[in-house]
Amino acid sequence: MPQNLTQKIIDAHRITGEMTPGSEVALRIDQTLTQDATGTMAYLQFEAMGVPRVRTELSVSYVDHNTLQMGFRNPDDHRYLRTVAARYGVVYSPAGTGICHQLHLENFARPGRTLIGSDSHTPTAGGVGCLAMGAGGLSVALAMAGEPYTISMPKVVRIWLEGELTGWAAAKDIILHLLGELSVKGGVGRVMEFAGPGVASLSVPERATITNMGAELGATTSIFPSDEQTRSFFKAMGREDEFELLLADEDAEYDEEVRIDLSTLEPLVAAPHMPDVRMTVRELAGKKVDQSAIGSCTNSSYADLKTVAQMLDGQRIKPETDLLVSPGSKQVLNMLAAEGLISPMLTAGARLLECTCGPCIGMGGSPVSSGVSVRTFNRNFEGRSGTQDGQVYLASPQTAAMCALKGEFTDPATWGEPPAKPEFPAEVPSIRHLFLMPPADGSEVEVLRGPNIVPLENFEALTETLETTVQLKVADNITTDHILPAGPQITALRSNIPAISEYIYSRVDADFVSRIREAGGGVIVGGENYGQGSSREHAALGPRHLGVAAVIVKSLARIHRANLVNFGILPLTFVNPGDYERLEQGAALTVPVGSITPGGEIEVQVAGIGGVLLQNDLTENELAIIQSGGLLNFVRAQADHA
Amino acid sequence: MPQNLTQKIIDAHRITGEMTPGSEVALRIDQTLTQDATGTMAYLQFEAMGVPRVRTELSVSYVDHNTLQMGFRNPDDHRYLRTVAARYGVVYSPAGTGICHQLHLENFARPGRTLIGSDSHTPTAGGVGCLAMGAGGLSVALAMAGEPYTISMPKVVRIWLEGELTGWAAAKDIILHLLGELSVKGGVGRVMEFAGPGVASLSVPERATITNMGAELGATTSIFPSDEQTRSFFKAMGREDEFELLLADEDAEYDEEVRIDLSTLEPLVAAPHMPDVRMTVRELAGKKVDQSAIGSCTNSSYADLKTVAQMLDGQRIKPETDLLVSPGSKQVLNMLAAEGLISPMLTAGARLLECTCGPCIGMGGSPVSSGVSVRTFNRNFEGRSGTQDGQVYLASPQTAAMCALKGEFTDPATWGEPPAKPEFPAEVPSIRHLFLMPPADGSEVEVLRGPNIVPLENFEALTETLETTVQLKVADNITTDHILPAGPQITALRSNIPAISEYIYSRVDADFVSRIREAGGGVIVGGENYGQGSSREHAALGPRHLGVAAVIVKSLARIHRANLVNFGILPLTFVNPGDYERLEQGAALTVPVGSITPGGEIEVQVAGIGGVLLQNDLTENELAIIQSGGLLNFVRAQADHA
Repeated sequence: MPQNLTQKIIDAHRITGEMTPGSEVALRIDQTLTQDATGTMAYLQFEAMGVPRVRTELSVSYVDHNTLQMGFRNPDDHRYLRTVAARYGVVYSPAGTGICHQLHLENFARPGRTLIGSDSHTPTAGGVGCLAMGAGGLSVALAMAGEPYTISMPKVVRIWLEGELTGWAAAKDIILHLLGELSVKGGVGRVMEFAGPGVASLSVPERATITNMGAELGATTSIFPSDEQTRSFFKAMGREDEFELLLADEDAEYDEEVRIDLSTLEPLVAAPHMPDVRMTVRELAGKKVDQSAIGSCTNSSYADLKTVAQMLDGQRIKPETDLLVSPGSKQVLNMLAAEGLISPMLTAGARLLECTCGPCIGMGGSPVSSGVSVRTFNRNFEGRSGTQDGQVYLASPQTAAMCALKGEFTDPATWGEPPAKPEFPAEVPSIRHLFLMPPADGSEVEVLRGPNIVPLENFEALTETLETTVQLKVADNITTDHILPAGPQITALRSNIPAISEYIYSRVDADFVSRIREAGGGVIVGGENYGQGSSREHAALGPRHLGVAAVIVKSLARIHRANLVNFGILPLTFVNPGDYERLEQGAALTVPVGSITPGGEIEVQVAGIGGVLLQNDLTENELAIIQSGGLLNFVRAQADHA
Repeated sequence: MPQNLTQKIIDAHRITGEMTPGSEVALRIDQTLTQDATGTMAYLQFEAMGVPRVRTELSVSYVDHNTLQMGFRNPDDHRYLRTVAARYGVVYSPAGTGICHQLHLENFARPGRTLIGSDSHTPTAGGVGCLAMGAGGLSVALAMAGEPYTISMPKVVRIWLEGELTGWAAAKDIILHLLGELSVKGGVGRVMEFAGPGVASLSVPERATITNMGAELGATTSIFPSDEQTRSFFKAMGREDEFELLLADEDAEYDEEVRIDLSTLEPLVAAPHMPDVRMTVRELAGKKVDQSAIGSCTNSSYADLKTVAQMLDGQRIKPETDLLVSPGSKQVLNMLAAEGLISPMLTAGARLLECTCGPCIGMGGSPVSSGVSVRTFNRNFEGRSGTQDGQVYLASPQTAAMCALKGEFTDPATWGEPPAKPEFPAEVPSIRHLFLMPPADGSEVEVLRGPNIVPLENFEALTETLETTVQLKVADNITTDHILPAGPQITALRSNIPAISEYIYSRVDADFVSRIREAGGGVIVGGENYGQGSSREHAALGPRHLGVAAVIVKSLARIHRANLVNFGILPLTFVNPGDYERLEQGAALTVPVGSITPGGEIEVQVAGIGGVLLQNDLTENELAIIQSGGLLNFVRAQADHA
């Protein structure tokens, strides 16, 4: 039976499950990547599994997020990441080498491979025909330990490209157009698979811009075929031997289709504050621009920056407009240097920042109050720039550079001839010697931890009968921000569960932590939609550290429920929602843990009240995980029995 | 009468005062500079004076400290600095253009001129024979308004240089040697004037390294003659027309003398945690190094960085050692780029940061916990790196680069031949077009303020009789950190007196601010050495904003006393220190302000206690300043009468 590209890769990596959309499929993972902001916890979890060395083909640990190193915590984290990588067989990329997705594309991504990364823009590698997906830190840790990665089999959408880009339209405008068509929810449960005669006209870096920002569609991932464009990219990168031709079968079937005629596209932006608020640059003409920022994993390639340097050469940006440039990698920067393209940018007035994520993650480069910032990045959520009332427009490097030169949006019809699309030079300087390759045997490597890096504790398995008390009662719609607030002070503690746990529920009930400490643990009672919001694992890890054994609620948000299971907290719901009113803070409970069955009901005894009926929707596997004290214990136990 | 260099410049700028060491001398100021961290308050103060345009020959506003722009406050400050500069005739240097002292040396510093700057390393310009001094923001604001700058006539120390540097010894080693000889207090009340046959062998950037770090001697300033080396520097900078020959008279007299034979020097460091803890690199051989950091206003010149690039070319630094490089200016970076010297640094593993102060002021680049960091900077105070237990060694660029290559200190005898001392190329690319020159008439320019930038309020003059209460009573040795704590959260509010005032005494008495607000003002009672510590003006401005009319103490620290006077707070001391015990918090006082005479005594009436005798040590001028409501009011009133 003919297969599309997505099906081919999934089929080749499928361990269990059927390829019917919506079915669970467990995949063998060839490669993993982490960045530093999520990586420290991923490696702490990997260490807790007791596996002597990673079992993937390749695992890479990049440092690109918290690179400013203000205070000891960041550099300590980086030293930990460097030494834990050497210990367990992971390639390490030091701060300043480049942005994980740009580096991975240039150096490691391969057609037909599966890749998961603890960063939502991991699909960038789909630009070379790799099935690349963003995942949580624990999933990446498990993949490194050789465990499969389970996804819901996605629908495959054929994005049919016809024609070629003309004038000032760029690859970024293709994905901005697609976001305008489909919205930020348009890709949920789907893989965007690019096909059609227009594909051949797009270079790999252009394709990577599109697959990168496909994450904003909510898609599982996006993928391009591996064709002659891909071959010439691998050749330029000095790794033609890693190239493989990989195309969808000609008569493959797709679940859905979207058609785009590239020749009709013009320069676009995503207007504040969502990546799918599509507008044309033309219609914004005359709007003053306070800042342009060029870079990020979306648009920091050699071709992107060479185009910008050529536009700036001999020009002077408007002094009222700041221009920040962050190259994607030292390879990109070296190529620009070799062609004498750095001084033209500096001399035009641009600020050259390090090869890191930088302003894209609010790590510097915030716009002025109410300022208009035109950014080549992938997200323009309100406040993400670091300036709450900043007005962020997402655009191509060409559009961002022109805004800096003019000090305002202008009609592309007035821009003249665009520079020729840059080709890779015959000789591309490799920076691969800057990656620290792990020794063949890392068992003697000492893993160095600063005082803020605390190994994961070993959580105990649940007892047969739990005698406990309600330590907190909260209302409906509790978010993970209620459970664990964000902010730099707290985020800096992400490698330190005991310390970060001090902030659990701190903005809801300042006494909660001391109360549950004194009680030696307890349960939390909540209402509907408990745990909505971000996927942060610490909102489950922190309560577990404090001794939360169960949450008893009316209903649970999906991702937080999964995190509770992973860290061994029982997620229970009221059979009769009215019982929420009966279960007050301080109530003493007896929970017959031993008699819980998957999907079944139990009666807990509440002192002075009597029985309350609770149910669970756990699978057999999930219940076993919780009874082990969490997924890490469960995996360890399986490894011992194997 | 023959004069030394210092006397010549002081004499030529002297408005009042005698040139006897210790006498007060009021000087006409030709040039001023500010950096952003101190600049916003300096310009707010200048604005409050109501002067339509700066009255100096040249005033420049540099942005080099808070350049990361994390959140709206920094970019708003920068926009304010840009627009206020255009409004009042000040040259503006945007973030990323370079470090103030390096830029000023390259573009503006002139022999024989007086320069004050709101940064303690302003003496860098002494490298071209300029009398350049660090000063408080208000002093710089007054100089911009055309007011003289008063100093205590310094002793002049002749630093007699003989011989030439040999081997790996560098200019940095000269000043490290001098610090070891004289200590961090050795220059107090003195100007270090360099002379002797060894001077001719030192280029201007080398001289600037020495005058820059002369600040660590506690000296008023340091100065080199303007000679043929100076002429060739001005020629390279494209401003030979601004060169003037300026030498000490041959038989000039000096107050003291120190002799150094340059040929005896070897690579040195200042060991933790003071710039005068001199050690040889040799004796540290074998000590592991976690980080090298090259840059700062001390050592970020073209010659410094070219030497480093040549040392790194074709090499690979030790992966366990981080190497950070921050060029001093875009001119330096452009010159390195033109010679193909950027890639060799990147390829060796160095991180290339922006042309800013960066790690020198703890703005990123903190070492790992307990880490050894070798820095080409000027200060290694405990904790300044951002890592409290960091071990910072100050050294030359050559030593720092070698530490990164070897991963440890090694004996310079093993380093081989040093690279040739770089000469300026025939063509030095100017970046002068990146400075924003003010319009001839700036009166129409709108000064843009973000929500965090609040104009200075107009403080009222003192009344004849003050009916008040003691709002706070504190003990001996209160520091400016007690009065106003440091930290990024509070420092970010330095352009916003109402907001920063919320933190006055917040760590001593959390209720103080609300209490004095409710009372509508009051006085503070303290013990010995009140106000010791930093020179921060906000420790007087904040209390003044809250309505503090007087401090009544046993004794006062010198700089804080001056700040109290400048902002119109009466500094009074007990005639009988035992009265400290009688004056309790809450006590109601009647202070006969109108009857205060310079240096005289007054009796204040305390309800329920009776008379308490207080004295002051104010000059007539100082008393008039306080009675006007502070120096700004006083200057405004003088201007109105003129």
